[in-house]
Amino acid sequence: MTQPDQTPETIEIDLQPVGRRISIQPGQTLLDAARLAGIDLSAACGGIGTCGSCRVKILRGSLDAPTLAELDVLEAAELLAGVRLACQVTPKTDVQVYIPPESLSSPQQMQIDGFGDLRRDHPPVQAIELDLLPPDEKDLRADLSRVEDFLHCRLAANSQQITLLSEALRAHHWKARLALLQQDHFCHLAAALPPGTPIYGLAADLGSTKLAFFLVDLENGATLVTNGVMNPQIAFGEDVVSRIAFANRQPANRRLLQKVVVDEINQTIEHFCLEANITPQQIVDVVLVGNTAIHHLVAGLPVEQLGQAPYIPAVSRGLNLPAESLGIQAASGANVFLPPNIAGYVGADHVAALLATQAIQSKETTLLVDIGTNTEISLIHAGQTFSCSCASGPAFEGAHIHAGMRAMQGAVEKSKITAESVQLTTIGHVLPLGICGSGILNIIADLRQARIINERGVMDTHHPRVKANGRKTQFLLASAKETGTSQDLIITRQDINEIQLAKAAIRAGIDVLLEAAGLQSNDIQHFICAGAFGTYLDTACAIQIGMFPSLPLERFHQVGNAAGVGARQMLLSSAIREQAEKVRQQVHYIELTAHPGFRDLYVENMIFP
Amino acid sequence: MTQPDQTPETIEIDLQPVGRRISIQPGQTLLDAARLAGIDLSAACGGIGTCGSCRVKILRGSLDAPTLAELDVLEAAELLAGVRLACQVTPKTDVQVYIPPESLSSPQQMQIDGFGDLRRDHPPVQAIELDLLPPDEKDLRADLSRVEDFLHCRLAANSQQITLLSEALRAHHWKARLALLQQDHFCHLAAALPPGTPIYGLAADLGSTKLAFFLVDLENGATLVTNGVMNPQIAFGEDVVSRIAFANRQPANRRLLQKVVVDEINQTIEHFCLEANITPQQIVDVVLVGNTAIHHLVAGLPVEQLGQAPYIPAVSRGLNLPAESLGIQAASGANVFLPPNIAGYVGADHVAALLATQAIQSKETTLLVDIGTNTEISLIHAGQTFSCSCASGPAFEGAHIHAGMRAMQGAVEKSKITAESVQLTTIGHVLPLGICGSGILNIIADLRQARIINERGVMDTHHPRVKANGRKTQFLLASAKETGTSQDLIITRQDINEIQLAKAAIRAGIDVLLEAAGLQSNDIQHFICAGAFGTYLDTACAIQIGMFPSLPLERFHQVGNAAGVGARQMLLSSAIREQAEKVRQQVHYIELTAHPGFRDLYVENMIFP
Repeated sequence: MTQPDQTPETIEIDLQPVGRRISIQPGQTLLDAARLAGIDLSAACGGIGTCGSCRVKILRGSLDAPTLAELDVLEAAELLAGVRLACQVTPKTDVQVYIPPESLSSPQQMQIDGFGDLRRDHPPVQAIELDLLPPDEKDLRADLSRVEDFLHCRLAANSQQITLLSEALRAHHWKARLALLQQDHFCHLAAALPPGTPIYGLAADLGSTKLAFFLVDLENGATLVTNGVMNPQIAFGEDVVSRIAFANRQPANRRLLQKVVVDEINQTIEHFCLEANITPQQIVDVVLVGNTAIHHLVAGLPVEQLGQAPYIPAVSRGLNLPAESLGIQAASGANVFLPPNIAGYVGADHVAALLATQAIQSKETTLLVDIGTNTEISLIHAGQTFSCSCASGPAFEGAHIHAGMRAMQGAVEKSKITAESVQLTTIGHVLPLGICGSGILNIIADLRQARIINERGVMDTHHPRVKANGRKTQFLLASAKETGTSQDLIITRQDINEIQLAKAAIRAGIDVLLEAAGLQSNDIQHFICAGAFGTYLDTACAIQIGMFPSLPLERFHQVGNAAGVGARQMLLSSAIREQAEKVRQQVHYIELTAHPGFRDLYVENMIFP
Repeated sequence: MTQPDQTPETIEIDLQPVGRRISIQPGQTLLDAARLAGIDLSAACGGIGTCGSCRVKILRGSLDAPTLAELDVLEAAELLAGVRLACQVTPKTDVQVYIPPESLSSPQQMQIDGFGDLRRDHPPVQAIELDLLPPDEKDLRADLSRVEDFLHCRLAANSQQITLLSEALRAHHWKARLALLQQDHFCHLAAALPPGTPIYGLAADLGSTKLAFFLVDLENGATLVTNGVMNPQIAFGEDVVSRIAFANRQPANRRLLQKVVVDEINQTIEHFCLEANITPQQIVDVVLVGNTAIHHLVAGLPVEQLGQAPYIPAVSRGLNLPAESLGIQAASGANVFLPPNIAGYVGADHVAALLATQAIQSKETTLLVDIGTNTEISLIHAGQTFSCSCASGPAFEGAHIHAGMRAMQGAVEKSKITAESVQLTTIGHVLPLGICGSGILNIIADLRQARIINERGVMDTHHPRVKANGRKTQFLLASAKETGTSQDLIITRQDINEIQLAKAAIRAGIDVLLEAAGLQSNDIQHFICAGAFGTYLDTACAIQIGMFPSLPLERFHQVGNAAGVGARQMLLSSAIREQAEKVRQQVHYIELTAHPGFRDLYVENMIFP
């Protein structure tokens, strides 16, 4: 336990959203920390606290009171929200800091793929133009009856909705445009708009690390605007397990984890409305996909039982909830569709990916893998689907890796290492800041091929770049001089071990599914890698370290954010929503923690081929 | 217009809930006003402001700041809520004051009838005991799926409901008691309770003047507790027309009119929970009936269009709204059922009365009349139902009558007047405070029979009790000495005119319906009088003044609060709810303001027989 009275020897600064951790000495500022890590934090005034350009937000950890310089420069609301000037803050204990894009000299944005139009196929929410006869002494029908008679269906609507409908009709000569959700024998009134108003949907892939948002034109399927932001829940836990633990500490925590995501959703809606020149009332449908824990947190469902075996979800079937009940500021009658999940650790994002990639309908044996802190894997064979989830850890997202960082500018994403030389390629072709998931995979595959590490991951201490320091051995990738920062870029024995654990879990999961289906790895005709990491990893390297089975490279398909595509499809097709429910029901879920053979396969796969 | 700088000669004090108006002189206190009106307001300290027993609440009008005595005695929250000490307040302008029962020496309570059990017949909300197998590694179904599989139906529930369900199951070894509303192909989850918990429903008849509440045991049909309170909307308008006008002035007003009623509902729930030793979570169903304007105001629907021809409701079919969306603090998943209304001025209370009296199913020609500020009338003949509403005004509730008051203790309810003598009977057999509706009807019938007024309502100025004062003639019922107050109890020419207008409207409404059905008045086999006034009026007197057609007295049925009975039946029978919808659809509504013959019939019926 850290004693508050004793100043620790070094202080750990966790820099977000890049995900780079750096150690500083007491007395050093957050600006120093960013510079040590090679992050170009703006400091127009040279760090004397007058320009205000190095604004950062403290996510975790406590600090001394703001300086006079900060009190001069920062608004009261900013101070309340935890905003500080990096040049003025000298942390005494570990802190987590968020650096907003506007405080960077060279902007770094979270990239999301997924522009492009998708096929409309009877969208769940459709627009209908109303053109009614006004009431008179011969026709005294109530407003709602007048509309229902026109539509030949009964409207599910709350009183706010009916009020907006009445007002819209009376304001526009008994004409209006309704957005209607056809669902379960009902016409649910999502919005009552002036005649001719276009309607839109919001799709979101809520990842543990990143939230990806899409504004979709419900009438032509076009994706108009996208937005990628860090999941603000990171401040309360790097992975979902620690967020569940935080949520269980007290009810207010669970509400806080919901609120921070809903706030991001609402900010995105605001941003989309500005970009597309529309109003929130025109966003008449919302689809949110995410893993089961994020799903439960955002929906306001209990997560305690997700944190302990046998990891039971409160809800696994698809849910429609009023956007209003979640605090989402879309059309006042908009529903949020939360597609079904398969199990406590196989969520709606995986269901969406199974549908978007069409893996689920494949006639040939197909494996879909979405690698993250939890890696979800499904094997489709002869009309059957087997799924599992394995705890692969956050190593591929840069966490738990000494020089790890997210796949952002400056991250090493490729390497070419021989016994004699090291070549590194970074995102954006700038000096290396750290190593992202695909980089570390590449580096380890190279180290193994060059025999610098053995099959157990032990480094050859005779190699000139390997430095042995007791049990802490490390390999020098680039010197401080080469990186342009204060630190050497290294990979440690511990880093290699993290990857061994991760790749063993994934491979053991694949092996368990193959065994369940009675197949050999070579029977896999299509091996689909979804998700950000799955898209950028080098499959040859993944085979080389034994994470993926050795298949011809042409059988691999790297498909990007399939979950996001699936979410958008669910805005545009009722059939896809129905299929999602079928997927949930047809999957044979295998709980690896309870599987008798999993442990042995896991240990076996720790070894490099 | 009253000039604020000029003190008016007399100040009008409107004392609620009795509904008695009294004129005082500047300098007189509210305690004086109550005493002048003969109301026994407590004043243990003799009116020096120390005992606090004469607490009253100011509903309308502005006063000087509280005195030091008041600041000593009253809590801050009371002062903010408009509570004052009657002995300390000397109004300078007209005010409306509410005297709470606890401030009266002899308590006066609003009486409501309606104890007694009703028949259960498949209540819409029923309890089901859940007894589930707990999840294990072989059975990983989500909580909601586990419940839905047990019930063989899909549950409509929001996330709060699912959370309570999960928590209840885990707290009670996978047992729970669910309250389920079967509706439109759905099982709506009203509450998830510990195993064996009894469930209850709240029924309310929301009158313009009085709110009547009933707590009903949904498992045996018993009415356990009732409560009658003044409708707090009175502070914003005596009748619904003036409340609609108030609501239309600004959106906040409409919300205020909703809030004051919802506050009363919540206070009643609190009171019922204490009385019956239950929790609000056990109140799993709510039925509210009322006239269309009150319905719209409580449901949060727009009322502007109800205030102008052709008086179109926003909604006329039955509505189910989440109790939570209206701010009603019952079980968190409880629905509020608002039964259908027939037209802008024939509400769900009349539909409930048609069902409760079984008038609607009558094989014989039946007339149902519910007299109030608006009088709703239905004629059932040969399988057809004709309905109308007539603006009978608030005279029968004591308003617009010089000495009028509500039917509470001290009100003259019966008279026996001959050319020579006057005998008055009051409610509670105490000295007369004023005259309630049945009293004024009786007095006018007597005056007419004794030829003290002629067929046009003009008083015989030769009669010793008649005092002519220009156009203002009046009849002395009791001298100040006889009433024990400072004022003579009189009936004025203006009072008689108010009753002429009211009775003419009602009779013209009856005549229009008879004409529509092609009937003569003598064809009416059953003449049902519902509502408080209808129950207590003397039908012979009503015939005598021409308000009701001359039928044999045995054809009249005075049935009390039939709307309240109907509301309770709707808690206990799905069939009654369905019938309510059929009633709405089958009624031939006749809008009297647009009826060509109504005006003539109205004028004709102003004459006394």
